[in-house]
Amino acid sequence: MRPFLRTLSILWLVLWLPLAQANSPEIRHWQLDNGARVYFVQTETLPIVDLRVTFDAGAARDGEQAGLARLTNSLLSQGAAGLNADELALAFESVGARYSSGSERDMAWLQLRSLTRPEALTAATDTLAMILAAPEFPEADLERQRRQMLVALQAERQSPPTIAERALYEALYGDHPYASAPQGTEDSVRALSREAVVEFHEQYYTAGNAVLAIVGDLSANEARELSERLLADLPAGDRAPQLPEPEPPEPQTVHIPYPSAQTHVLIGQLGIARGDEDYFPLYVGNHILGGSGLVSMLVHEMRERRGLSYSSYSYFVPSAERGPFILGTQVRADRTGEALEVLENLFVEFRAEGPSADRLQAAQENITGSFPLNIDSNRKIVGYVSMIGFYGLPLDHLDTFIGQVEAVTQAAIVSSFQNRLDPEHRVRILVGPEGILADEDE
Amino acid sequence: MRPFLRTLSILWLVLWLPLAQANSPEIRHWQLDNGARVYFVQTETLPIVDLRVTFDAGAARDGEQAGLARLTNSLLSQGAAGLNADELALAFESVGARYSSGSERDMAWLQLRSLTRPEALTAATDTLAMILAAPEFPEADLERQRRQMLVALQAERQSPPTIAERALYEALYGDHPYASAPQGTEDSVRALSREAVVEFHEQYYTAGNAVLAIVGDLSANEARELSERLLADLPAGDRAPQLPEPEPPEPQTVHIPYPSAQTHVLIGQLGIARGDEDYFPLYVGNHILGGSGLVSMLVHEMRERRGLSYSSYSYFVPSAERGPFILGTQVRADRTGEALEVLENLFVEFRAEGPSADRLQAAQENITGSFPLNIDSNRKIVGYVSMIGFYGLPLDHLDTFIGQVEAVTQAAIVSSFQNRLDPEHRVRILVGPEGILADEDE
Repeated sequence: MRPFLRTLSILWLVLWLPLAQANSPEIRHWQLDNGARVYFVQTETLPIVDLRVTFDAGAARDGEQAGLARLTNSLLSQGAAGLNADELALAFESVGARYSSGSERDMAWLQLRSLTRPEALTAATDTLAMILAAPEFPEADLERQRRQMLVALQAERQSPPTIAERALYEALYGDHPYASAPQGTEDSVRALSREAVVEFHEQYYTAGNAVLAIVGDLSANEARELSERLLADLPAGDRAPQLPEPEPPEPQTVHIPYPSAQTHVLIGQLGIARGDEDYFPLYVGNHILGGSGLVSMLVHEMRERRGLSYSSYSYFVPSAERGPFILGTQVRADRTGEALEVLENLFVEFRAEGPSADRLQAAQENITGSFPLNIDSNRKIVGYVSMIGFYGLPLDHLDTFIGQVEAVTQAAIVSSFQNRLDPEHRVRILVGPEGILADEDE
Repeated sequence: MRPFLRTLSILWLVLWLPLAQANSPEIRHWQLDNGARVYFVQTETLPIVDLRVTFDAGAARDGEQAGLARLTNSLLSQGAAGLNADELALAFESVGARYSSGSERDMAWLQLRSLTRPEALTAATDTLAMILAAPEFPEADLERQRRQMLVALQAERQSPPTIAERALYEALYGDHPYASAPQGTEDSVRALSREAVVEFHEQYYTAGNAVLAIVGDLSANEARELSERLLADLPAGDRAPQLPEPEPPEPQTVHIPYPSAQTHVLIGQLGIARGDEDYFPLYVGNHILGGSGLVSMLVHEMRERRGLSYSSYSYFVPSAERGPFILGTQVRADRTGEALEVLENLFVEFRAEGPSADRLQAAQENITGSFPLNIDSNRKIVGYVSMIGFYGLPLDHLDTFIGQVEAVTQAAIVSSFQNRLDPEHRVRILVGPEGILADEDE
């Protein structure tokens, strides 16, 4: 059979495969000599490999230089090992590979999708290895990137949701590293130097601080060789030190004037760290309270019953240290006070009593029934595997997910909401026109 | 085994399945009594169904009322069978289904992703059936949608690429229906009436004018039942009449003044209809000329050799009738004339001589090697299957794709470019500062 016909047949084949006997899911894990942790899931449905290298090098490591983690991450592919940005892009494109990168509070990452054909995979891996270990941070690209960050910060001033989120983290975290925004401030971005970028890269982009997730059509041996080839040139380095524990904030209301007809409301408190033993009851409880979009209790109360707001929601941001738990809504400005009262009362009531048996069962069915959508592509799986590796979650996290959701009881939701959340220590952020609350002081 | 464990096992199973003996790919096709054409691909990797209903109801059917097809399509989910927009959204969301819709020049479509669990699939299908057959086009939603279209048209005036594209279609197609933009004009959008929307829906959203593509984990019987359930309430109606053949345009240069440092350049001529027998040599030839992003001859000449432009490209838009073939670039305004000359000379030379043997081989390997990326999700497959059904392409189009690409010769590229393209009948669109060409008249 001609090779291209064989490729095609294999491809179609897997789309038509009858289900055979069951295997167990498996995340294989190993550590390289230089300290890098590797997590591998073998999939055989397509001749494609997705991989992500994650470093504990997010904005929480910015220190006084807000925006440094993001600038460093965005410059990696602008020049490395003697190749400029165009040549690096061409090296990926000519073998059909796709590269991207990003950074948030906890982590910074580089991601690659490549075909498994050996010549494509080798070329793409070698290019990524150069970007990882030998970035050059050219001055001209740094200035361009700085200008882009400043333009983005200007745009942010026109966006009430972004203004509110920044203010929420500041109010909730005070002196803790989570307080400052990954995108920095205009002053901090102007002050970032190439020297700081080089130092940040040397300190945090090391093997000891790295987690590599690989998902794709490779044997375990091939994945091991790939991991060594990709990360061999990284210096060993150290794992970043643990972040301090955040302190619960003083209760406060921050009102940021904005000329809009609606008020953007966020109410935040400290939530949970990744790996918290109460994760599942909190996850299911939040789904019922405000996590499930149009069918949550918050939407029912705020929109259906009172016509206060089209959009109301709640969510946890589980992080290396306690991330926020947030209740939010947008509401017609003259009804801001009423909306705050309804949101906060509903939360207090839910925390005291939990959901009804009907709502709990519906939520469990909704979550477990739609779980397939969460892992319906290699790209989504590589995201989960990275998260499991980065936060040190059990390797069977995905395997046990549905069972853990099914096991949640009404009593567990009540006790977890009472143990982990404390509405006395909440901050409220209001972005909207002035004079929306009769009494804005506390 | 408990049901949720079984679901999970099946899911993981398919990710780990070893390759078994080959099956042939298969698109099954049938026609319903009311005339609707159905195309079905059975996939068993995930408990998910993706489906798309396509109507010959795109902007080419707008007549004098530019924007009518888009307005009609966007209003479908705003109210149907007594349910309002929120209730319809909730009906999808409560069973984990995702709905979207859209329209372009040739077609308008509705798309649904649902879990295969019978209660979820039935509920999602019934909701979509209501949206298809019993939309209500509420006046208030029509006005809101009209305002959104007007805002989008204002934004368009700030976007040189969109300005250029609109001007290209106008210059290239003259009186032909393809001349007018799917988004309409400010005047035409202001004039659209609810009555016109209702008439458009009655005429074009019929079974005889519909193609349904289904991709997912269903048996052929289940897919057949789904197709009947979904489309049973559509009136039979007629298939839309064939569009007229477009005439080649008079050569012309249109310069639209815009205060930018760069000129946005498009050079357009009539290309091919879907199903053209020269499709594959044109596709491979264009990949080499300007279709492959950073590795094309256009980029090599314009960027690497002359430093004229970062971005240069060419593409076909195969359509029901001859769609455009477009060469494009962005260039520093003071080098616009030089860029035009280089682009046009390169095209004329390529049309006369075709690619080198090396470039041809590299392109064939690049296209066939990265073909898996084109069909790596059900969503992409449903797009291809819709296209095959809508344009009446051979059912084995995907199956033979790689073989057809491999079979393209240098001689076939030259003769297809000479047969199908005629640089004498081209239009040039320049969007950029005034005075960029020494002589703008022809």
